Amino acid sequence: MLMREPFRTTRRVAWHDTDAAGIAHFTAFLRYMEDAEHELLRHVGLSVLARDDEGPITWPRVAVRCDFTASVTFEDVLDIEVRVARIGEKSVTYRFQFAHDGRPIAHGVITAVCCRLDPQNKTPQSIAIPEWIAAQLRQAVCDVGA
Amino acid sequence: MLMREPFRTTRRVAWHDTDAAGIAHFTAFLRYMEDAEHELLRHVGLSVLARDDEGPITWPRVAVRCDFTASVTFEDVLDIEVRVARIGEKSVTYRFQFAHDGRPIAHGVITAVCCRLDPQNKTPQSIAIPEWIAAQLRQAVCDVGA
Amino acid sequence: MLMREPFRTTRRVAWHDTDAAGIAHFTAFLRYMEDAEHELLRHVGLSVLARDDEGPITWPRVAVRCDFTASVTFEDVLDIEVRVARIGEKSVTYRFQFAHDGRPIAHGVITAVCCRLDPQNKTPQSIAIPEWIAAQLRQAVCDVGA
Amino acid sequence: MLMREPFRTTRRVAWHDTDAAGIAHFTAFLRYMEDAEHELLRHVGLSVLARDDEGPITWPRVAVRCDFTASVTFEDVLDIEVRVARIGEKSVTYRFQFAHDGRPIAHGVITAVCCRLDPQNKTPQSIAIPEWIAAQLRQAVCDVGA
Repeated sequence: MLMREPFRTTRRVAWHDTDAAGIAHFTAFLRYMEDAEHELLRHVGLSVLARDDEGPITWPRVAVRCDFTASVTFEDVLDIEVRVARIGEKSVTYRFQFAHDGRPIAHGVITAVCCRLDPQNKTPQSIAIPEWIAAQLRQAVCDVGA
Repeated sequence: MLMREPFRTTRRVAWHDTDAAGIAHFTAFLRYMEDAEHELLRHVGLSVLARDDEGPITWPRVAVRCDFTASVTFEDVLDIEVRVARIGEKSVTYRFQFAHDGRPIAHGVITAVCCRLDPQNKTPQSIAIPEWIAAQLRQAVCDVGA
Repeated sequence: MLMREPFRTTRRVAWHDTDAAGIAHFTAFLRYMEDAEHELLRHVGLSVLARDDEGPITWPRVAVRCDFTASVTFEDVLDIEVRVARIGEKSVTYRFQFAHDGRPIAHGVITAVCCRLDPQNKTPQSIAIPEWIAAQLRQAVCDVGA
Repeated sequence: MLMREPFRTTRRVAWHDTDAAGIAHFTAFLRYMEDAEHELLRHVGLSVLARDDEGPITWPRVAVRCDFTASVTFEDVLDIEVRVARIGEKSVTYRFQFAHDGRPIAHGVITAVCCRLDPQNKTPQSIAIPEWIAAQLRQAVCDVGA
C-alpha cells in the first residue's frame, strides 16, 4: 500500500533559527528536514532510534542536500512535504519540499543508512534494514509528485 | 595568483555537536563548513558580512550538500580543506574535505550567492559580485586536487 | 485582567537536541524556553520582533537560568508552563516549569529587556516598554502558583 | 596547588551564532561556556566523557545561568576566563567571564554533577566524584578574582 499523498507537516521559524541577515539560517532547514523525517516515522509506527533483541538501531545520514529558491524569516510558517523516495537494502532516501504561503522556498534530500549501535564501540555499523522496519517504511512510500 | 594549496583549518567536535548515537550530528558538519568558509574569507581580507557605500552585502546559501563516509565523536579533531571551486557572476562555490587521523570522513559543497541586504526589506536581493570582492576571492581559487 | 492559569504548551525532544550521554542537551531547554515565551507573546497578540513608527523593537535577554532535576531523552514530550512573573519599566521576567509524565524536569527564568534596534547601529538600546506592548503583556501576568 | 590565574581562552562569534537582531544569540554563550569548561578539563588532563572500569562517566548540568551586560556581533572575539569555583562531593561549579575589547559582556555559572552512564538505562546516575578525577580538578581551582 502506497501513500497517495506525501506526508505533510508545518514548522514555524524560531528566533534562534534566524541569523544576522534577518533570515532563517540554512542549517535550520536541515534540522526541519530531520524533524519531519522523524515525524513521518512516528506516523507509520517507527522511531529513528529503534531497538530489537540485538540492541539499538539508528540511521546516520550518508548524504544530505538542500537547495534554496527563496528565504523566510522569523515566525514564517513553512509547509513541508516528505516523501520516502527510495528504500534500498541498507538505506532510505527522503525528499522534502518547503513552501511558504504557496511559494516554493527549498527542496532537500536525506539518505540515511540503517546501523546497529554498539555501546562499547561508538562507530555505528551498517546492516540490512530489518524486515519489520522495511515493512513499516514501505507504507510511507509515495509515488506521487516531485 | 592561485593558491597552490587548499586553505586548511581544524575543528574539534564539541559535546553539543554530538547526538544520542554518540557521534557528531550531521548538522555540525554544515556549521563547520560555513565557519571554515568564513575563516578562508578572513584569510583573504574579506568578511561574509561586507559593507560598501550602498549598505550591507552578505552571502545566503543557494545549495549545500554533504556526503559522509565515516563518523566522528566527541573531541575528535577534524582536518578541513576548503577550496574556492568556482566564482560565477553572482555566486561562489566552495568545496570541503574532512578527515580525521588521515581517514576521510566527509566532503561537502556550498554555493553562496552575493546579496544586498536592505534593512527595510528583509529579503536579500542577489547582485553581481562587486569587483573589489571578486578580486580578493580570486586569490583563494585553488585548482589543485579534489 | 490576570491569567488564572499559566500559559501551557508542549515540546517533543528532537534528535538534534540530544547529546552523546543519550539525553536532551541543556541548551535545548534554553531554546524551548525562548520558543515558549514567543508562543505566549503570539497568544496575547504580540511578537518578540515588533515594529512601531520609530522602527523595530526586540527583547535581548539580560539574565537566563535553568535548574534541572531530571533528564529527558529523544521523543520525550515536555509539558511546559510559562508565567509572566514581573513587568518592569524596561524588562519582563518569565518563569518556566518543565515536566514529563507528571515528573518535574527543570525550571527556568528569562529576563528580557525592551530594546530598539537601529539598523545602522547593531547595538540594541534599551527603552521603556511602549504602553501598547505593556498593555498586552499585562494580560499574560499569572499570579497563580510557582 | 591552586591556579594563580583563571584559565583563559578566546572565541570568535560565528555567523550561525547570530540572530535577526544582528547580535550573538544568548544560547551561543551557553555553548561557549560548555566548550571553555571542556577545554579547561583537557588542560588538566581530563575529559567531560571519562571512562573507568565500571564504564562511562559524564557531567550533566544541574544549574546554568548567564547574565548579560552588553551584546556582541558576528566575528567579534570574546576573551573568556574560566574558574573552578567549587568542588563538592558530587558536583563542580565553574564561573565564566566574557569580555570583548576589554569591555565586560557577560558572566555565567555552570554546576555539573558527576554521573555514571548506564548504556541500558538512559538516565545518568549521580555518583561521588572519583578521587582520580577530583585530584585533577583540584589543580584547576582558582581562588583569585571574581
